[in-house]
Amino acid sequence: MLVFGHYRAKSGNSGREMEYPKSIQRLMLEFSKLPGVGKRSAERFVFHLLKLSNDEIRSLADAISGLKSGIINCEICGNLDLRSPCYICSSDKRDCRTVCVVEDVRDLYAMEKTGQYRGLYHILGGVISPLDGIGPEDLRIRELVDRTKNSQVGEVIIATSPSLSGDATALYLQKVLKPQGVALSRIAFGLPVGSEVQNADENTLIRAMEGRRKLE
Amino acid sequence: MLVFGHYRAKSGNSGREMEYPKSIQRLMLEFSKLPGVGKRSAERFVFHLLKLSNDEIRSLADAISGLKSGIINCEICGNLDLRSPCYICSSDKRDCRTVCVVEDVRDLYAMEKTGQYRGLYHILGGVISPLDGIGPEDLRIRELVDRTKNSQVGEVIIATSPSLSGDATALYLQKVLKPQGVALSRIAFGLPVGSEVQNADENTLIRAMEGRRKLE
Repeated sequence: MLVFGHYRAKSGNSGREMEYPKSIQRLMLEFSKLPGVGKRSAERFVFHLLKLSNDEIRSLADAISGLKSGIINCEICGNLDLRSPCYICSSDKRDCRTVCVVEDVRDLYAMEKTGQYRGLYHILGGVISPLDGIGPEDLRIRELVDRTKNSQVGEVIIATSPSLSGDATALYLQKVLKPQGVALSRIAFGLPVGSEVQNADENTLIRAMEGRRKLE
Repeated sequence: MLVFGHYRAKSGNSGREMEYPKSIQRLMLEFSKLPGVGKRSAERFVFHLLKLSNDEIRSLADAISGLKSGIINCEICGNLDLRSPCYICSSDKRDCRTVCVVEDVRDLYAMEKTGQYRGLYHILGGVISPLDGIGPEDLRIRELVDRTKNSQVGEVIIATSPSLSGDATALYLQKVLKPQGVALSRIAFGLPVGSEVQNADENTLIRAMEGRRKLE
């Protein structure tokens, strides 16, 4: 191991800081801005791309550049679509007396996949979360209140998640929508289908007990 | 819940399949090609980008497009650099009698960060892995053999990982390099510094015992 013993100094190794070439560092930084992506994953992504052909790399870059092209927010519900009003708001097959309030476009899609809900939606664009500096005015709540005022909406189903922020948002919506005279409801929380009681966490069990339904 | 009970059909919801707009689907597909990125993460990445400004999105796309610009493989060791031979191979401060064989450029950087190794490197570009269809001819092994033949290399340190493939590759290298008359060594495997014996896994302990050093 002469090659180690001979030189013990910790610097001046090759007269250069040990850093990846600039373009690698730059992309690692960009990737690490993605949610849940740390330095390690960003590095793995970059070295994966380095092995790809130029065409494959361009394909990814183009998909990113073109992401928003043509996509707009529906002026009524906030859904993402190529047109506004979106295909749901402009469909004559939907029950426009019912509006389901969700946090995010992904929640709308999850709901649509059930194939069971025939009403309209309203996308908040997040939940009230003081720690993240998100207040009611940052969400599409005023639009929701206006919507219940000016249209034939009869029921608002609040489908925010059963989290601290989701529950706080539901409470806030309840407060501002009650004066509008619409029927309000919250989706049910309890044991997911296929799960076992013994494996459910405490909070889910509490919710399941609270939300119990009378058998007739 | 009239809005549910009234319509029970599972299709014909709005006359359209429930799919994200094409540009979203396309980018989700691209992202899911990244290592360790499933459909869910890809979706999260896309919806994160949708919230960013056009400038921020362009910044990511540009970083990807520009990733390989100027970066070349060192013709000697396979390192990634803006020039070939790379800054390590062309440095006069390195001991060119010793070559450390690593799987990947990231391993070279990990080694360099120690600031202790003063020899040169040879990057294999992977490990022998029949299950993935990677044989010796897919790696930079011929280049390594040629290098030991044609230069003043006196010792080759094999620093592939202590995995099945890494060990198999080390064995293969041992077989092809022995006839070249160079000194061969393999980096040590054992307990990582700062760990506790009771927490070490069996294989690590076996390696640590096998690799024990005489105290004098």
